[in-house]
Amino acid sequence: MNAAARLFYQGETAHSLFIMLDGWVKLYRLLPCGVEAVVSVLSREDAFGEASAMPGEVYSTGAEAVADSHIMQIDARSLWSAIKENPQLCHALLGASVSRNRALVDQLEQLKSHTGAQRIADFLLGLCKTEHGACTVVLPYDKGLIASWLGLKPETLSRAFKRLQPYGVSISKNRATIKSVERLIRFAEEDPSSSRKDAPLKSSSFTQS
Amino acid sequence: MNAAARLFYQGETAHSLFIMLDGWVKLYRLLPCGVEAVVSVLSREDAFGEASAMPGEVYSTGAEAVADSHIMQIDARSLWSAIKENPQLCHALLGASVSRNRALVDQLEQLKSHTGAQRIADFLLGLCKTEHGACTVVLPYDKGLIASWLGLKPETLSRAFKRLQPYGVSISKNRATIKSVERLIRFAEEDPSSSRKDAPLKSSSFTQS
Repeated sequence: MNAAARLFYQGETAHSLFIMLDGWVKLYRLLPCGVEAVVSVLSREDAFGEASAMPGEVYSTGAEAVADSHIMQIDARSLWSAIKENPQLCHALLGASVSRNRALVDQLEQLKSHTGAQRIADFLLGLCKTEHGACTVVLPYDKGLIASWLGLKPETLSRAFKRLQPYGVSISKNRATIKSVERLIRFAEEDPSSSRKDAPLKSSSFTQS
Repeated sequence: MNAAARLFYQGETAHSLFIMLDGWVKLYRLLPCGVEAVVSVLSREDAFGEASAMPGEVYSTGAEAVADSHIMQIDARSLWSAIKENPQLCHALLGASVSRNRALVDQLEQLKSHTGAQRIADFLLGLCKTEHGACTVVLPYDKGLIASWLGLKPETLSRAFKRLQPYGVSISKNRATIKSVERLIRFAEEDPSSSRKDAPLKSSSFTQS
């Protein structure tokens, strides 16, 4: 599956379950203003398209590969027979759906409570392999997608990245260097209501200008 | 189950599945600033606590009745045996989880694309039993909860209600009168980016002041 390949459209009858083997896929909604709102960015071992387990269901988002990806595609009819033969499969799908649910609630909470800079800090921390000392991470996909996924406008993303400099974060192209992971964790967990600057949601509208 | 009765805490080991027979229950996250972010308000026929179908899982939100409610509570161990005996049950739970998922994505899209007044319009339209002419609806729970559920501060809610007056909506205590449902639908579906006032998310922060 090449980058930019579309797996399904929002509203399309759910025809397949997908399991990520490698790469990145975005799930998104198209907003009335024509902008995409990215609701999930999925990677290895994630399953998506669980709606296909329910005959007649439609996909609630669109899905598109954002990097060259290996994805297993399981046709809905094969899925239904597999579930009949092996009910454990349904249980596994329920587990995947409950996890997605949790990730969506996390995102709602982040949008409601975290500043743009804190959301980026969280994003970078999610890429770090360590909880101590310094860390360099490679941004896994382009900044436009990161912005959309974090609910930021592209220009707000750059400002929010700059706001992380005093906390020891520098960005060069697609590489972020974090001087102290502990310090960034403290910043990400700070109560944003103690500061009026860059309040949650304020900087995050797609359509506000 | 009386109003304000707590069904479970966020992070608690998932011990039961719940099925709403009657009443209202909120699912919520506690934000770092101490405010509750309501992520779902559930009513008759909704199931919640699907995490209890997975041994060892925890609840990702808290749950509390917000009105006197009748709720069926199914102990996790009974649920596991029931699923073993009747795999169709797992399929039904997967359906419930996929629907919740869709509702969360809807909410994310609303937060990212709709103004506060539009979110209230959507909320009122969801209570209307008609798509034509006039309609009077009773607000099903208190305004503080409506505000939190729509991602608005209580004072922003009042302002947003006022913004609906020119569109034929008047509020008196817990009763809303809508002169023309069609007109309100048009307003709810308008592209908010055409107006700079009350841009999406701008009015919706809990902590912004």
